[in-house]
Amino acid sequence: MADDGPDEAGEPEGPDGAAGQPVTPDRLRAFSDGVFAIAATLLILEVKAPAADERVWHALRHEWPALAAYAVTFLVIGIAWIHHHNLFHQVRTVDRGMLLLNLGMLATISFLPLPTATLGGHLRGGDASAAAVFYSVSMAAASAWFTLFWHHLCRRPQLMLPAAREGASRARRNSLLGPVGYAAAALIAPLTPEGSLALSAALVVYFVVGRRAPATRTRVLAE
Amino acid sequence: MADDGPDEAGEPEGPDGAAGQPVTPDRLRAFSDGVFAIAATLLILEVKAPAADERVWHALRHEWPALAAYAVTFLVIGIAWIHHHNLFHQVRTVDRGMLLLNLGMLATISFLPLPTATLGGHLRGGDASAAAVFYSVSMAAASAWFTLFWHHLCRRPQLMLPAAREGASRARRNSLLGPVGYAAAALIAPLTPEGSLALSAALVVYFVVGRRAPATRTRVLAE
Amino acid sequence: MADDGPDEAGEPEGPDGAAGQPVTPDRLRAFSDGVFAIAATLLILEVKAPAADERVWHALRHEWPALAAYAVTFLVIGIAWIHHHNLFHQVRTVDRGMLLLNLGMLATISFLPLPTATLGGHLRGGDASAAAVFYSVSMAAASAWFTLFWHHLCRRPQLMLPAAREGASRARRNSLLGPVGYAAAALIAPLTPEGSLALSAALVVYFVVGRRAPATRTRVLAE
Amino acid sequence: MADDGPDEAGEPEGPDGAAGQPVTPDRLRAFSDGVFAIAATLLILEVKAPAADERVWHALRHEWPALAAYAVTFLVIGIAWIHHHNLFHQVRTVDRGMLLLNLGMLATISFLPLPTATLGGHLRGGDASAAAVFYSVSMAAASAWFTLFWHHLCRRPQLMLPAAREGASRARRNSLLGPVGYAAAALIAPLTPEGSLALSAALVVYFVVGRRAPATRTRVLAE
Repeated sequence: MADDGPDEAGEPEGPDGAAGQPVTPDRLRAFSDGVFAIAATLLILEVKAPAADERVWHALRHEWPALAAYAVTFLVIGIAWIHHHNLFHQVRTVDRGMLLLNLGMLATISFLPLPTATLGGHLRGGDASAAAVFYSVSMAAASAWFTLFWHHLCRRPQLMLPAAREGASRARRNSLLGPVGYAAAALIAPLTPEGSLALSAALVVYFVVGRRAPATRTRVLAE
Repeated sequence: MADDGPDEAGEPEGPDGAAGQPVTPDRLRAFSDGVFAIAATLLILEVKAPAADERVWHALRHEWPALAAYAVTFLVIGIAWIHHHNLFHQVRTVDRGMLLLNLGMLATISFLPLPTATLGGHLRGGDASAAAVFYSVSMAAASAWFTLFWHHLCRRPQLMLPAAREGASRARRNSLLGPVGYAAAALIAPLTPEGSLALSAALVVYFVVGRRAPATRTRVLAE
Repeated sequence: MADDGPDEAGEPEGPDGAAGQPVTPDRLRAFSDGVFAIAATLLILEVKAPAADERVWHALRHEWPALAAYAVTFLVIGIAWIHHHNLFHQVRTVDRGMLLLNLGMLATISFLPLPTATLGGHLRGGDASAAAVFYSVSMAAASAWFTLFWHHLCRRPQLMLPAAREGASRARRNSLLGPVGYAAAALIAPLTPEGSLALSAALVVYFVVGRRAPATRTRVLAE
Repeated sequence: MADDGPDEAGEPEGPDGAAGQPVTPDRLRAFSDGVFAIAATLLILEVKAPAADERVWHALRHEWPALAAYAVTFLVIGIAWIHHHNLFHQVRTVDRGMLLLNLGMLATISFLPLPTATLGGHLRGGDASAAAVFYSVSMAAASAWFTLFWHHLCRRPQLMLPAAREGASRARRNSLLGPVGYAAAALIAPLTPEGSLALSAALVVYFVVGRRAPATRTRVLAE
């Protein structure tokens, strides 16, 4: 009942050892999984169903920006969940700093339905640039938390499982791809809002299928 | 889709065979369970409560297409959850390909409130055929992922528990009933939108109670 | 990974033994917990926040039926969750019938936001009786599943843990209080809609604090 | 509230001491985690996306009260989740009273989207004082449950793990900071609604980063 895993790690506990940790990894994962799953599933509520007096296919075609934004954001959240899983799988102790980083990241993730709805509603309108900037900056912010996580871990290697320690600085470097890429999408948004969304889509597809993407590199090292 | 490479678990790996897997089955199930449960529970939000100035029974009778679509989609998601459970219960290692298939399936499942609301709003209107096609095609897409899953497993038997391997090709064949049946519902939708919904309902009832349905055949083989 | 608990029960397996069970209790609980938690939390979305041009306290007072319905339904779902927990805690094997009963019960639970919103919107209006009947009948339906569950278990005692078997018929009898009580609330609804809601509230409060209520009687017998 | 009676676990019970408990801590956590995660994630639905004919940045600036209320409430729910985790980590047996306290707390947590939306919609309007009072009182109510929890535990030390017992009365005292602080925010709301929100924000930031805050003091004592 009070056995939550990290004590199984055989190493002597450091200054942030399990005794001082306010949250066990299991419940941190349960709460985080809940927020990821809910944020991803709520997105569809922002796509308006065709009204009773509209032609169905016409209305859906008209909603393509909302549908495209739905697809991209769903994948972004799914990839963030995978990164979150990979990261916490290499952690043996959660300290207060990680708890706060996690809370901030979840707040950003659960915020994403707002820029997604904004982009979906404005991509064909007069203020598409601003909507695309808002969307891309939100994505950059959501992904930047992983760089902060890895930076935190690089400075406190005792929080990681021993086998994970040597890969952490590479993981930190790789994790920059998200915020840098989405920031680039924000920069080109004033020129081409649709190109900005396409760049975000390309980024997330790369995260999904790329052989050298962070999702592939930062694997489970010890289980 | 995303060739897996040599890092995925091959047969010889022992109890630590998960070393190369990017996501542990437990969290995959937790995230997936969350998406299934939320998508199923959000559906009711698409059924409008009678407005304050409407007669309650009259308004609910008027909403019967939305209520029927709610019931069918809820059962479809419930059955998909059961299939998902059965499938992952026969898996010993999750590789990258399964992770992507799972992400795609969850995106489709969490998409279902949109066609459900569309059908509920149009089944009695002038564009009922298109709404029924949209609904049936979405259902076919959601169920087709299981065929892709079993196909992936048939080609990589080492991902399955030993006892599950001989039943996999039969499971793949059985899993075609969903996409083929819902495609048939899409085909008859232009002739009879209500008949199309009735066929979808019949299919899901068969999945629920049929003795030879995939849900019954692809059982837990080793526990 | 494939160890899900029921095999720990030492008794020889009956005709519905674990080998034939399509869903493990753990995931059944996870999916069910998700639906309960989401249905309970979605309820507040049906209470409209005061519009920007309304006086806050005045609007909230005006919303008291919606707030009262929120409170009663939240407790009903919470109690249903407790009953669900108690029941499944005495089960060692989930058969197909229980799976279907569970799916039906979850569909009814996730349906409750609709009658709750209907009652909240109509309790002060001209069609309050119909709204109160709709609400009470929905509650009766949601609670009747527990009687069906216990009936199913009484006829298949091998599904229960040995220590739970002798209490099952009493649990079945006790479980009638819910559907009978809410049916009584439906019967008095045409006379006094507010009295009907008050009776539902009294019932759920009794379930919460009553010493002889099913929640108290059907305890965990073996753990 | 619901005297517990002799069936609740007393000190002498051994590793099977949970025999009389109606709900296992694991499922209590799962259900509670779900409600916390959903309530936190639903909050963003109360922030309206800029309409298609609005300027994006202008509309978002106009929505700053809703965004600020979103951020504060998200953190309040996150902190409540941490407190909930800390508290239940020191509990070895859940009795009926704790079950009811938990149900009440979850009802209050899942209620928070309503005052958050109210404050977001009124902070710049004519009735900002009332909205700020409603918001602060709701926060005070949500946090007061923790004082009730610790009070319940202080009177029934056998419910706690042995190592947790001596810290319980200090935890009860510390837990007063929340309700007292939010009550102070309610008191100043008629004078300065924005100052009231700022005080709530300061409180939650203190809970997040303060070195002597309850979140830090009520740590995991035995694991």
